[in-house]
Amino acid sequence: MRISELSVVSGVPVPTVKFYLREGLLAAGDARAVNQAEYGDEHLRRLRLIRALTDVGGLRLREVRAVLAAIDDELMPLHDLLGVAQYALVRGGPNESHPPADDSGGATSDVDRLLAEMGWHVNAAAPSRRSLAQAIFTLRELRWDVSIDDLVRYARAVDDLAAEEVATVPDHGSRSQIVEHMVVGTVIFEAVLTALRRLAQEHHSARRFAKRPRLANDARR
Amino acid sequence: MRISELSVVSGVPVPTVKFYLREGLLAAGDARAVNQAEYGDEHLRRLRLIRALTDVGGLRLREVRAVLAAIDDELMPLHDLLGVAQYALVRGGPNESHPPADDSGGATSDVDRLLAEMGWHVNAAAPSRRSLAQAIFTLRELRWDVSIDDLVRYARAVDDLAAEEVATVPDHGSRSQIVEHMVVGTVIFEAVLTALRRLAQEHHSARRFAKRPRLANDARR
Repeated sequence: MRISELSVVSGVPVPTVKFYLREGLLAAGDARAVNQAEYGDEHLRRLRLIRALTDVGGLRLREVRAVLAAIDDELMPLHDLLGVAQYALVRGGPNESHPPADDSGGATSDVDRLLAEMGWHVNAAAPSRRSLAQAIFTLRELRWDVSIDDLVRYARAVDDLAAEEVATVPDHGSRSQIVEHMVVGTVIFEAVLTALRRLAQEHHSARRFAKRPRLANDARR
Repeated sequence: MRISELSVVSGVPVPTVKFYLREGLLAAGDARAVNQAEYGDEHLRRLRLIRALTDVGGLRLREVRAVLAAIDDELMPLHDLLGVAQYALVRGGPNESHPPADDSGGATSDVDRLLAEMGWHVNAAAPSRRSLAQAIFTLRELRWDVSIDDLVRYARAVDDLAAEEVATVPDHGSRSQIVEHMVVGTVIFEAVLTALRRLAQEHHSARRFAKRPRLANDARR
């Protein structure tokens, strides 16, 4: 198909497609004539993946680039794939410029204790260890009491989900399909989980706080 | 304390503190002399909150501004607080410019069915409904089979956590303290949950895929 059709089918505007082509995120089409290239299903698939990462995952361009590089790197051993694909996803969020230098609350050692408690074996360099330690450190800085037991409850809630997510990764298909599955699973189901938690919070919050005014009225009678 | 001390105690560099002052995110200190202002615990607390939202929550400046406005808006009824504080958190991520116009997979009605199934009562305008629908739509566009049952499993995993989070919101203290608690809980525990899910994925992925090479060796003998 031509670039105009690729745009219609993917829902991505032509200027955006051209931008991705210039940035090297999308491979060039097959040249058919001067100023005319042909695009196939691989292009459509890659375009949808880029859109998923940016629109749903909220990833920035350089993060998308890192993830696509991990997908395309044929030399990466399969058992390292998820880790590396994940590591590429760790965004500027947990800010490198403000490391929890004063780890007085022992946030880092709490992460170690939690992992031991859960029986999780995780690379010492996994960026999520650091993200988690920083979140715990920040909570304590804001005078928020957070114990290992609290963390264990959160960890248990995601343990089965993660196990099932990993179990659904196909062990057939091309290497790039497997990595793509992992990355999509990580990014999009993260968005699913975040949205669901917020919907649940709104429901429970309304149940708790919407009652208030009525109770106040009752007391006044 | 002076601005230099505020910077040391909070760990936020003086130029950044000045930037927040200029942008109106942080209230001006009490003027003591020409070019000298005095800052108190409220300033320190607000500064830590801004840092938590940006560094751990990954929020952009305009999102921080919206959240702080929700915290400071004394006119907002208490039972609307969590919703509005949350709504301010919904970032550019689920991109407004690419609405799932072609909702052929019925993602929006799946969200309705899921909410009914969970017994969750949620405002029709809640942005997380839309985020969730877009995530489901995107998964299906990427040929990912996602059923109501799958979604219910994810919803159940966060339901108890959300109920407990709402239960820990204090019902004493100032209005701004209550909202601050809600916002911090939403943003920082979201980072906690995300980090834990990735750690769990890495653990389960290593268990599944790291075995592979050894099995291959065994077969070769």
